[in-house]
Amino acid sequence: MSNLEAISPISPTPVSEVASWEAESDVVVVGYGCAGASAAIGAMEGGASVTILERAGAGGGASAMAGGEIYMGGGTPIQKACGFDDTPQAMFDFLMAATGPSPNEEKLSVYCDRSVEHFHWLVECGVTFKPSFYATPCWEPPTDDGLVYTGGENAWPFSDLVPPAPRGHVPQIQNKRLLERSGGWELMRHLSATVDKGGAAVRPDTRVRSLIVDDGKVVGVIARSFGQDFAIRARRGVVLASGGFAANKDMVERHVPAIAGQMALGTDGDDGTSIRLGQGVGAMVAHLDAAEAALPSNPPLVYPSLLVNQFGQRFINEDTYCGRIGQMAVFHQQGRCSLVLDEAIFESVPEAERWGARPTYVAATLAELEEEMSLPTGSLQATVETYNRFAREGRDPVFHKRQEYLRPLEAPYGGIPLDGPYATFTLGGLVTTIDGEVRGANGSPIPGLYGAGRATWGIPSWGYASGTSLGDGTFFGRRSGRAAARS
Amino acid sequence: MSNLEAISPISPTPVSEVASWEAESDVVVVGYGCAGASAAIGAMEGGASVTILERAGAGGGASAMAGGEIYMGGGTPIQKACGFDDTPQAMFDFLMAATGPSPNEEKLSVYCDRSVEHFHWLVECGVTFKPSFYATPCWEPPTDDGLVYTGGENAWPFSDLVPPAPRGHVPQIQNKRLLERSGGWELMRHLSATVDKGGAAVRPDTRVRSLIVDDGKVVGVIARSFGQDFAIRARRGVVLASGGFAANKDMVERHVPAIAGQMALGTDGDDGTSIRLGQGVGAMVAHLDAAEAALPSNPPLVYPSLLVNQFGQRFINEDTYCGRIGQMAVFHQQGRCSLVLDEAIFESVPEAERWGARPTYVAATLAELEEEMSLPTGSLQATVETYNRFAREGRDPVFHKRQEYLRPLEAPYGGIPLDGPYATFTLGGLVTTIDGEVRGANGSPIPGLYGAGRATWGIPSWGYASGTSLGDGTFFGRRSGRAAARS
Repeated sequence: MSNLEAISPISPTPVSEVASWEAESDVVVVGYGCAGASAAIGAMEGGASVTILERAGAGGGASAMAGGEIYMGGGTPIQKACGFDDTPQAMFDFLMAATGPSPNEEKLSVYCDRSVEHFHWLVECGVTFKPSFYATPCWEPPTDDGLVYTGGENAWPFSDLVPPAPRGHVPQIQNKRLLERSGGWELMRHLSATVDKGGAAVRPDTRVRSLIVDDGKVVGVIARSFGQDFAIRARRGVVLASGGFAANKDMVERHVPAIAGQMALGTDGDDGTSIRLGQGVGAMVAHLDAAEAALPSNPPLVYPSLLVNQFGQRFINEDTYCGRIGQMAVFHQQGRCSLVLDEAIFESVPEAERWGARPTYVAATLAELEEEMSLPTGSLQATVETYNRFAREGRDPVFHKRQEYLRPLEAPYGGIPLDGPYATFTLGGLVTTIDGEVRGANGSPIPGLYGAGRATWGIPSWGYASGTSLGDGTFFGRRSGRAAARS
Repeated sequence: MSNLEAISPISPTPVSEVASWEAESDVVVVGYGCAGASAAIGAMEGGASVTILERAGAGGGASAMAGGEIYMGGGTPIQKACGFDDTPQAMFDFLMAATGPSPNEEKLSVYCDRSVEHFHWLVECGVTFKPSFYATPCWEPPTDDGLVYTGGENAWPFSDLVPPAPRGHVPQIQNKRLLERSGGWELMRHLSATVDKGGAAVRPDTRVRSLIVDDGKVVGVIARSFGQDFAIRARRGVVLASGGFAANKDMVERHVPAIAGQMALGTDGDDGTSIRLGQGVGAMVAHLDAAEAALPSNPPLVYPSLLVNQFGQRFINEDTYCGRIGQMAVFHQQGRCSLVLDEAIFESVPEAERWGARPTYVAATLAELEEEMSLPTGSLQATVETYNRFAREGRDPVFHKRQEYLRPLEAPYGGIPLDGPYATFTLGGLVTTIDGEVRGANGSPIPGLYGAGRATWGIPSWGYASGTSLGDGTFFGRRSGRAAARS
């Protein structure tokens, strides 16, 4: 039995128990990643005074560790400069198809309609996007290019459904050197500067222990810093923005057992605190069983290879978004899959893009490779024979991989197990309105309580595209701050 | 956006708002299926007076519609008479492997250790089990035989892990005629007679609208009958046993979108009321994303055929429990699969066991069949070629179907789409102790509140075996009643 305390709602504190307020402001923001920063900026735009409470020693959170893609479209200046047509409708249609089942239609609608406006807001915050497109498949560009495909828009089945456009916008870092700094770090640098400019009080090394309620309204928080508990009053509202629960082992085991034991992408602070604080005052939650799981390999190596499951079968077109492949592998193939390729394919991938991968197994025949890889007898042979037959004709009738990545395999063959670890983070959380109000019983907003980022059910309901977390964190973060300031 | 009220916790009523009690007893049971009946009997065994509230015009619920298998083992008299060895440990090992991920170890342990005792209790309640084994694969025996395999115990992978034993115990109906009455109906007949004998008050046509709480303790319910609301006091406890939420469209769409639109197995009363009543007083819930989904076909037809997904691939050994296959089809193959067979196989299945199925597609070659079935070019051909090659050798190295069901397919071929409807019901619900106490925040029991049956997270966490619902409903139903009587 797991630790039930770690997965339980956190009870609120009645205001009658608060002897004194250590500080107060109009809006109190819990968590200083991109959602919290954007909430603070939004609240200040609305004329509110803001206090940000951050558990770590400084802001950044999982956002600063992210590659930095921000999912925006509908015709941004960067898309136009790179020659891509896009519309809010096409963006909406793609996200409706890619982020379900049960896509968050209400949020997708406003997110797509106002995406260009959001782009300009980020630019006003100081973020620079270089008007250049990085065409090589990638998790994130190793260059300082500003635009990239991040969700399989140009691969089957989406390319058949919606005219494709790249929507991953990456903040430009001057003099970027590979892996030195990430776009997420750069995003947080500018958002933090904007927060400082606005005059928000930032309190690092401060954990939130409980919400304070007064007759059903959230009016502040009990926080702890250096072992001392104290109360901070929120005259207008509290915004919960401290991330998902990938780092809460017990919550993961209860809600998403398929990713238990995999790598948690984020910080120790992604422990579900915001979700549990909300639940303590009756918040609705949704999709706690959903998570992203990144395939542990690099797209340039994956696309021309074959991906097979434990039965030696292909299960997806290898040229789609590798975060989508990772979800399929973890949730539908028991996290067991392998790359199968040949020497020619391996050699054709530049060494820097192999990420150190080398074939674990090498064989002169498919029968041998199958045996070495402990795949069922005959399974891999049948898969490759069928694949090769059609690849020679330049087509893939089963999984619809694009022609440019179809190369019949020839001896010598190689196999690379991709058993993990898959980099995972959770997608479900508090149910909020498009203005970030946290919904309680019957769906009505809980007075004084707002939420944004991975603590909430946002743009991804289940299916994921890179950039939707920084995207919905900043977009709905800002809106929640503005709504809190208005209240 | 779905109807948020229909998926929300139901707020409790403070006892201060209760003007008068229309009735009272020691224990009040909500719902009169097998869990509610067993709770009532258990409470009366403990010396308590009992009132059962049932929304329909009479008891029965989904239990009376069930085939009637009850999952018991560890060496029951029926198992012994039929020549099967079984132990509580083997039963536990099987259920740990088959009911996960995240199997309910705490409940499985007591459920298996006391299964033989539970068998004798059901016999004391008047249920008869005939000491004969029905060997033909089936959903439930068309005969009055008392023992049957119901969870794939004798198929891969479980047969490699644990010595197999059949554990589906079916109540015997005198002079049973096929499909006239079900074992579940028979079970309810005896449980109801035992309830009556014990003197419980049964109130049909009565819905429960709210729990009544007094300083954190559940002390009764607000019920409605013929348009009138009234309060019923529970001096010792309330047992929530009104089933899962398969009939609550909004809850299904929110928690288990994969089964939305499929057939809900059960009654209109399976609308999540017990779960929502519990949530209203802070109950923990678990595995709301889990559901059983029965493959829409009969095992005698499925076992010797091939099952393929939308990519023309096999995805499971066809000779395992068809409830397990259904889950795999709905949750991992998008609910799209087909039977592929040949004339010889079709003719070998007795007409009564085909359940009216006929090949929708017939073809002289696999290439033609593939095209008729709109399967990807080459996919089915590769699958059947590989299958046939090994079937001729009497083996199935990929999915490990038993030799007796391996028959190489030969022209003419046939295809039967199994797109649905899948008969579904939900598995997740209130988190309860092994004594049926409903756990609230931090896992501590909510005073006065108990739960059993499909309103709770019971024996199936995710994976299912026929008989585990009537099994855990009666087993933990009785324990919850006894615990409520003791309190």
